[in-house]
Formats: sequence, C-alpha cells, structure tokens
Amino acid sequence: MKPGFVPGLRAEVEVVVDESMQASFAGRVIHPLYSTWSLVHHIEYAARRVLEPYLEPHEEGVGYAVEVRHLAPTPVGARVRAVAVLEAIEGNRVICRVEAFNDREKIAEGKQIQVIVEKSAFRRRIEELQQRLASAASGE
Amino acid sequence: MKPGFVPGLRAEVEVVVDESMQASFAGRVIHPLYSTWSLVHHIEYAARRVLEPYLEPHEEGVGYAVEVRHLAPTPVGARVRAVAVLEAIEGNRVICRVEAFNDREKIAEGKQIQVIVEKSAFRRRIEELQQRLASAASGE
Repeated sequence: MKPGFVPGLRAEVEVVVDESMQASFAGRVIHPLYSTWSLVHHIEYAARRVLEPYLEPHEEGVGYAVEVRHLAPTPVGARVRAVAVLEAIEGNRVICRVEAFNDREKIAEGKQIQVIVEKSAFRRRIEELQQRLASAASGE
Repeated sequence: MKPGFVPGLRAEVEVVVDESMQASFAGRVIHPLYSTWSLVHHIEYAARRVLEPYLEPHEEGVGYAVEVRHLAPTPVGARVRAVAVLEAIEGNRVICRVEAFNDREKIAEGKQIQVIVEKSAFRRRIEELQQRLASAASGE
C-alpha cells in the first residue's frame, strides 16, 4: 500500500434513488423503496473509494464481506449518501465502518471488508475461470 | 403468518451471471466477476421466496439486515444458485441462513433477516415518505 493508508480515511458516494434501485426481484417490485442490495452496492463503492488511491500498481482490492442493517426506508427520488471510514487493516484485510443517510436520517450502518491481492495472480485466476467456463460450454 | 412457517423451509434462486452483475461502480468495471451486491440481491430474493408463501393478506415482509462472506470468484457467464433456509423466527424477525454456489464450489455464506410488518401501516408510511419528498421538491 502507498503511504498514508491509515484508519480514519473516509470516502462518500451520493446517489438519487431511481427505479433500478428499488426492492425488486426478477423485475417484480416488492416495495417502491431503496433496496438493501443497492445500499450494499453504494456502501461497497464508498469503501472502494477509500482504498483505491492507496493501491500500488501491483495490488488490487477485492470485496470480501459485508454486513449491514437497514434502519429506515427511503423512497424513489430521494437522495442517499453512503459513507465508508477505514477502521482497521488486519494483514491483507481492509475493514471499513459504513453508514448511509438520506436527507432526513441515518438509514443504514454496518461493516465492509476488502482483501488486498497481487494483481497479476488475481488476473491469472480470472482468466483461468473464464477459460474453464468456455471449455465447459464448448463441451456441452 | 400462515401455518407451516417453521425452521428448515428453504428456497433457491438460480441466475446466470451477466455483465449487469459485475463488480462495477458508476459504470466502471472493477473485476469481470459476480459482485457482492449482486450476490446480496439474489440471496435476498431466495429469502423472500422462503417467506412470501406464508404471509397473511395483512402482512408484508421487509428486508432488514444481511451479512455475507464472498468465498470464491465467479466469472460472467457462469451459473449461480442462491439458497436460503429459514433458521429462526424471533418476534417479527425472520432469520435465514444463506449460501450460494456456482457449478464448481460454494461461493458465499451468511445470514439474512426480514421483518414482518402490518401491510396497511407500512403502505401509509411509504405514502407519507413519497408525499414529503414531493413537497420538498415543489418547495425548492
């Protein structure tokens, strides 16, 4: 990691909730509200923004774990701000405390963990997975 | 809840990973792999399918919390199966153990919690939120 990657670093992501972020499954809208999986998307984005400026050229960050509690509903059209704060670095694990807010209140809190990997080895692993998939498809 | 809503009930969701499910933020692809937030989407869908057949007409289920560890990468084009098993019902909380698999291995595990609410009261709350948002917008 580049120097300066220390607990307390923070980053934000702001979005306006649109219909693609609703609580829906296979196209069926369950609630016209900001979904937990969209919340996870934006929380992960904020955590990525904490990490990314400090990655060395040979390093890559990969999302590993997330836990989040969704505290209040947010309707389509409202603004959401997701915040990640670097809490700890444990070995190759980057642990962020995460929160989200709409214009009225805090709507979520939790934790997100990224793992630092060697970029070249990770790319090789992805290529192997893609090749294996292509072989399996052509063998069908 | 309708009779029969007891621990051990399970449901699955199967998807083929497409480009919309990649680890990407604001249109920028970070890894050409199944993202954690897509995993959360499918896990929540499986948990919804455990619950939905047992909701009484006056009840609704709302996603509350999720925790998940992403154990192995899955490339675009591969198949993913998300599984939810009802673990416990604590008051109005419905707790599911969740797992996901691709064709080769287990790729995730965790827990998801839904909350049972009164459908009419929840609808009123959503309408209030929508009206407040509309008033704020017209006041700008």
